[in-house]
Amino acid sequence: MNRSLTMKRALVVYAHPEPTSFTAALKDCAIDVLRDLGFQVEVSDLYGENFNPVAGRHDFMSESDSSRFHYQSEQLAASKDQTFSDEIRREQERVGKADLFVFVFPLWWGGVPAILKGWFDRVLAYGFAYADGKRYEHGYFLGKRGVLAISTGGTEHRFSAGGSYGEMSTVLHGVSHCMLGYLGLETSDPFVAYAAPRVGDEERGRYLQQWRAYLAGIATSGDWLAHGVPQPSADAEPGPAAEDGWDKMS
Amino acid sequence: MNRSLTMKRALVVYAHPEPTSFTAALKDCAIDVLRDLGFQVEVSDLYGENFNPVAGRHDFMSESDSSRFHYQSEQLAASKDQTFSDEIRREQERVGKADLFVFVFPLWWGGVPAILKGWFDRVLAYGFAYADGKRYEHGYFLGKRGVLAISTGGTEHRFSAGGSYGEMSTVLHGVSHCMLGYLGLETSDPFVAYAAPRVGDEERGRYLQQWRAYLAGIATSGDWLAHGVPQPSADAEPGPAAEDGWDKMS
Repeated sequence: MNRSLTMKRALVVYAHPEPTSFTAALKDCAIDVLRDLGFQVEVSDLYGENFNPVAGRHDFMSESDSSRFHYQSEQLAASKDQTFSDEIRREQERVGKADLFVFVFPLWWGGVPAILKGWFDRVLAYGFAYADGKRYEHGYFLGKRGVLAISTGGTEHRFSAGGSYGEMSTVLHGVSHCMLGYLGLETSDPFVAYAAPRVGDEERGRYLQQWRAYLAGIATSGDWLAHGVPQPSADAEPGPAAEDGWDKMS
Repeated sequence: MNRSLTMKRALVVYAHPEPTSFTAALKDCAIDVLRDLGFQVEVSDLYGENFNPVAGRHDFMSESDSSRFHYQSEQLAASKDQTFSDEIRREQERVGKADLFVFVFPLWWGGVPAILKGWFDRVLAYGFAYADGKRYEHGYFLGKRGVLAISTGGTEHRFSAGGSYGEMSTVLHGVSHCMLGYLGLETSDPFVAYAAPRVGDEERGRYLQQWRAYLAGIATSGDWLAHGVPQPSADAEPGPAAEDGWDKMS
């Protein structure tokens, strides 16, 4: 299949409550850039769509064990039986179609806002997005790409080796490595608009230009879209004795 | 004031959907240990109390700027005017009384479940829990202590330098340093029950014994409760030119 003749698809996952925020501008910029490059762009606007980040029984249309709620077991059963709730299924369909994932959010408490954390907890379910032996270099998302676009209140210095928060790569390890990398996504350095509230309109404009160029580079560099990319599937059935991923009791 | 004659207070913040989980056992153990040591123990059972983790306009009984929602500005105004919603105010009262904070949760995607992330986003508000110049070694929570109790699906090896997730201290940097440390809490190494689902009842029993001893040590070591501890207050009013913390536009 000549992949270059097919539509390329991107999913922008966006988490900010205010449509006039600079984070929203980063999101709008990403949509523009990717459409200009011929991508079909889908947006998960978590605040706009009133996404519920709380993992729970409401994730499932039926339960495999109603006496004791074990989240990952229910996720695995729902992946096999296609019994996720409508909200989860909608997001999983978006995820399943995308070649490129763009996460746009403000850094709150050194991490993603709760509404985005819950998107990972709930949507990227065991059996759907990963399984035992299906993570990192063997992940379902191998051959796809992921990128973070972040606005911070803190200055760049604060996120350096000598700064009070520590290096940004360390602050973001839990997101870049334990979330995107875990899935098998090819990731680049995050794009960070440092001190976005303080830098003034001119610098914010520069940030948008830089982001546009950076994202275009990620979207077009290499030949990753020249060959087909694997799709997530729910065919792996891990056993309880496996090394990792199964969380019964915890 | 002879602090040793006053009641010591702990807040256990607990995030797990299943009351029979091992994480719940860690929580129950913490409550027992601390009560045995003479602490007055309050519990924020986030799932049990149906805590909403989504930061938004519903956090406030009135808005200082209804045309454009800027979260930290609203938090600051609410800290001054005491206009937080009932849910936030209830949690802030619990926070304000505590000398020792115990966070008990399963590690999901290398971090706290969304319901706990949202507790930080919403309850530990700008003006209430921190302000410009009031963080880390100058934080409002200086003299108080915080500890994490975590259950994981992954083995200890996975969270080592050679393991796929990286060292646990790096995985948890965003929580230990950017959340607890940011507040000014004195923190120790997290207590981690590795591979809790897989280790068997005997080892899980050992985990509970170890956790009991570890927490008792944190609660009683040193003379931190011998002198009074500072309380959070909302007296600092940062300006927009300050180095950090203010997030307008982002």
